[in-house]
Amino acid sequence: MQAQVIEPPVKLSGVSVNILLFIFSWASSAKVDAIRRAGAEVQHFGTDGLDTEEHARQYAIDNAMTYVSPYNDADVIVGQASCGVEIANQINNVDALFVAVGGGGLIAGVAGFLRSVNPRMQVIGCQPTAAPIMAASIKARRLLDMPSETTLSDGTAGAIEAGAITFDLCQKLVDDYALVPEEEIALAMREFIDAHHMLLEGAAGVALAGLKQFSQHCQGRNVVVIICGANINRDTLRKII
Amino acid sequence: MQAQVIEPPVKLSGVSVNILLFIFSWASSAKVDAIRRAGAEVQHFGTDGLDTEEHARQYAIDNAMTYVSPYNDADVIVGQASCGVEIANQINNVDALFVAVGGGGLIAGVAGFLRSVNPRMQVIGCQPTAAPIMAASIKARRLLDMPSETTLSDGTAGAIEAGAITFDLCQKLVDDYALVPEEEIALAMREFIDAHHMLLEGAAGVALAGLKQFSQHCQGRNVVVIICGANINRDTLRKII
Repeated sequence: MQAQVIEPPVKLSGVSVNILLFIFSWASSAKVDAIRRAGAEVQHFGTDGLDTEEHARQYAIDNAMTYVSPYNDADVIVGQASCGVEIANQINNVDALFVAVGGGGLIAGVAGFLRSVNPRMQVIGCQPTAAPIMAASIKARRLLDMPSETTLSDGTAGAIEAGAITFDLCQKLVDDYALVPEEEIALAMREFIDAHHMLLEGAAGVALAGLKQFSQHCQGRNVVVIICGANINRDTLRKII
Repeated sequence: MQAQVIEPPVKLSGVSVNILLFIFSWASSAKVDAIRRAGAEVQHFGTDGLDTEEHARQYAIDNAMTYVSPYNDADVIVGQASCGVEIANQINNVDALFVAVGGGGLIAGVAGFLRSVNPRMQVIGCQPTAAPIMAASIKARRLLDMPSETTLSDGTAGAIEAGAITFDLCQKLVDDYALVPEEEIALAMREFIDAHHMLLEGAAGVALAGLKQFSQHCQGRNVVVIICGANINRDTLRKII
């Protein structure tokens, strides 16, 4: 019944790698468990994703390890673009794309690729009103250092690293932002579970709630919403339903 | 957010068909909603699947319609065997197969096909202790007319039609039965949701709980458990987690 557990080190293309992953204190336990099962060591640090990133970056320097940012890394973004390739293989003409935005890596990768297929595709970044850092930064034309509140969408919470390459990419690729309150995230998650009998995490709920805000506008168009994960723990699921 | 809704009549291979589906009163509302969305009309009748079948069979005669049994029909069983074909395409040597058993159509189809690939494969039929009709009938060497109690596994509940072809098929194909109490079904469902972040219905929980009873025996072998559906409604999900 238990999911498969990989013992560290993890084999990546035949090379053994020890992965140490830092995550903030209130991240979904379902996600932490899944990461551990995948063979990484997990340590909690900080309450805002950015604190965690700064700590991890310093830790890597101090211990001669390689730091990998969850979004501020061209290779990570190209990896996330592979999701766009999969979408393009399944749907010819995407008119509008809804993606949850935290650091902006996922939307940069997916929108970047799909725009190369359809230059007129509309891209909507979706953020919780509790943590609208990218949307507020784009509006201010510079990366703002603002705190994020607790949200169902732990996957998109946290401030964005100064100089992050995703800021320019989002400025170029994202047409508009949907900011969604927690009740709308919860409602979208509940409706999705009822209709599709699939679990989803808060960040995926943010993208669905974003679509609902733009639903009039989307009538009759080919719309893609990225259900970016199902790492929801039992307590949160109980609250949602 | 809502799942796609198909308006009746349903097109099957280009032919328009009006589908009227009878189901017993306490069947999962999630399943009923999904069937309606697929374009069938649904009517509730009776509290045991067999009452419902008898009513549907008579209704079809009275209204010059075609009756399709959920299990006592060679074509339905061959359709379910296609699940075995998919398994064989993904796994070379299945040593043991766990399937929830109600009328016995799913296990007859899947085991029938997979046995043709691996004649030594072990087949375990899994039933709730609240509704162990096939297991008890096989033990008694004749189809017993016994009531089933309410169970999380609404999908396998109900008595079996006299003369059902699945009785002989199960006698031939099923090596052993696992009878699982409701608490074990609930625990297996909870563990599966936690580990895999996927929803599942009670009948799928029965198959997983059956595997747990045989877990010692399965050490190091290629085991397939059929997660036969995710039609779980919100109230049941709340109870489970």
